[in-house]
Order: sequence, then C-alpha cells, then structure tokens
Amino acid sequence: MKTQYYTSTSIDGYLADEDNSLDWLFQFGEIEEIDGVDEDFSQFVEQVGALAMGSTTYEWIIEHENVREDPEKWPYEIPAWVFSSRNLPKVDGADIHFVQGDVAPVHADMVKAADGKNIWLVGGGELVGQFYDHDLLDEIILSVAPVTLGSGAPLLPREITTPPLKLASMQKLGDVFAVLTYEVQ
Amino acid sequence: MKTQYYTSTSIDGYLADEDNSLDWLFQFGEIEEIDGVDEDFSQFVEQVGALAMGSTTYEWIIEHENVREDPEKWPYEIPAWVFSSRNLPKVDGADIHFVQGDVAPVHADMVKAADGKNIWLVGGGELVGQFYDHDLLDEIILSVAPVTLGSGAPLLPREITTPPLKLASMQKLGDVFAVLTYEVQ
Repeated sequence: MKTQYYTSTSIDGYLADEDNSLDWLFQFGEIEEIDGVDEDFSQFVEQVGALAMGSTTYEWIIEHENVREDPEKWPYEIPAWVFSSRNLPKVDGADIHFVQGDVAPVHADMVKAADGKNIWLVGGGELVGQFYDHDLLDEIILSVAPVTLGSGAPLLPREITTPPLKLASMQKLGDVFAVLTYEVQ
Repeated sequence: MKTQYYTSTSIDGYLADEDNSLDWLFQFGEIEEIDGVDEDFSQFVEQVGALAMGSTTYEWIIEHENVREDPEKWPYEIPAWVFSSRNLPKVDGADIHFVQGDVAPVHADMVKAADGKNIWLVGGGELVGQFYDHDLLDEIILSVAPVTLGSGAPLLPREITTPPLKLASMQKLGDVFAVLTYEVQ
C-alpha cells in the first residue's frame, strides 16, 4: 500500500494557471492518442483503492465534467475524500466523504477503505503538502507537460531537500509528456 | 548553431532557493561521481562558443568560486556576456563583456564570437525569458534535481504554451537527475 501523488504539471511546477485553467494541458487533445498515456494511467488507477482531493480540485471536476447536471459523470468509482472547510455541492450516488482538519485520521480511514490498494492524492499541492508534513506521502508521479506557465497553483509548496526525493523511474510519452516517478525517502 | 538554456532546477522550477543558495544541489556531492553526469555536461560544453548570464548568476560564481582572490578560478574559457545595469567586479584575464539593455544586438555579437558553435544561456530565468521574447531561444536542457523548494528564483518566468515546447529527449542519471531536453517550436 502506497500513498501516491499523481498529477499533471507544467515544467515549472504549476498544476493550473492563474485563472485555474487547464487549457494548456487539454491542447494535447485526447491524451489517449499519445502512445502509452492511456495504459500508463489505467495501470496506475487499477491499483488505487481510495482518493483524496482539496476543494478547488473538487469544484473544478464538478464544473468541468458537468457533474451538477449529470451526477453519473462523477469520474471515480472508488471512494473519494474531499477536504474543505466550506459547504460543497454533493453528487447523488457518488461515494464522497467531505472532511476537514488534520489529514492523519482521515488517512487512516482511507487506508481501511482502500483495503490493501494504494491511496491517490489528486491535489492540490497544499493538501498533498499536509500529507507530506505528516510523513504520509510515499510517491510522487508527475506527468510533465511541455509548457511553462510562469505562475499559478503550485505543485507542492514545500521544501523537500533533506533527504531529497529519489528518482525511481522516468518514461517518455510521445514528444509530449515526461513521466517522472519519485519516492519520498 | 543553437541558443540553449542549460541549467539545473528543482522539480518545482526553481534555480536557487530564497537565500540564493544551491546547497540543495551540492548535497549530491561530486556530481561527476554519478554515472554519466560528467560526460553529459562535457559534451554539451564542447559545442558551446559563447555564453551569457545575468548579474545574480555572475555574482554567485564570483563568490562561490572565490574568483576575487584568484581570477584564474573563473570557470570559463569561452567568451562570456554579463547583463547588468550595475557596476560589477571585473575578473583579470577573463574574456567577459559587460552589457545591458536589449538582448537582440548582444545575441548577434555572441553569434559572431561563437563562430558556428552554440550559445549557452546560463541564467537566470528572467534573462533567458528576454531571449525567448525575442525568438532567440532554441532549446531548453534541464537537469532536474530530486528536490522541491517551494519558492526561490524562477526557472523561466514566462507562459510558453502556444505553441508548447517539444520534448526532444530525456535521460536518467543515477537515481538523482532527470535530464529533459525541450525544443522551442
């Protein structure tokens, strides 16, 4: 069982631009068309038993996937934990737990629910940073898009230098994505 | 002849931390000891005929390499252009041109001096951004160290999304560095 932060990012470490847009990412179109992208992500998701995200990520999915009008568009079948101090719209029929505060007890609940499978931290960076602070982050998998944004939502607003991360593997998907896997030591 | 930005960076796109320190990079010790690092960099440098840097980078080299006391410690034999609006200390015997203002005419001088070889933009990010703005940047080669800094000197404070960069190649050096080469389209 590993707790993994899997995300797309710009080269300069932003998850979204200043307008909270991912247009820079979606320009690559159906990423399934790039050799290996679909398999790579599918293999990752198959091993996941629970996921967590912050409120900005949640609201982005609700809006972008048009989940309000059609709750079946909620993209995940595995249980999701959404961290927020605000009241967020619910999704009928989706297995979503709204929580706030310390990530440690929530992580314990997620471990139980995942039942031996991995835990996926979807983002954003500050939430993932809180898991890191509590020594609850094992792996960081970055799908680096070939763009720079210059500003935006930070990938992981923490200083992780001592010890450094360990570059476990890397993979080139087309002439577009560099997938870098780091282990937290 | 290519104009190349070759630099080390943190995963989250910082060249140096808030204190302008590279200790996070130097913890990897004699990077020459990591298989391939030395060859990789030597091959790059052999093809370079002129280099440019900003004043912060220059002052960092002067101080870190102890060049003030021993001018022979200036690390480059090829001609260097240093962009600054301030008066900077000179280095006896070193081929250094102090310049300011528009990068385009300086780039033209560098092309002449390089005599068919490549031009290396050492940093920092804002100076490289000015070459990019003038369509004078061909390639970005990043030696990504396995750390996050959370803040510091930005790698390249520009939005480069349309067109995106092209991931030309990638290389794993030990379990430490991911070397990513991007072409500017």
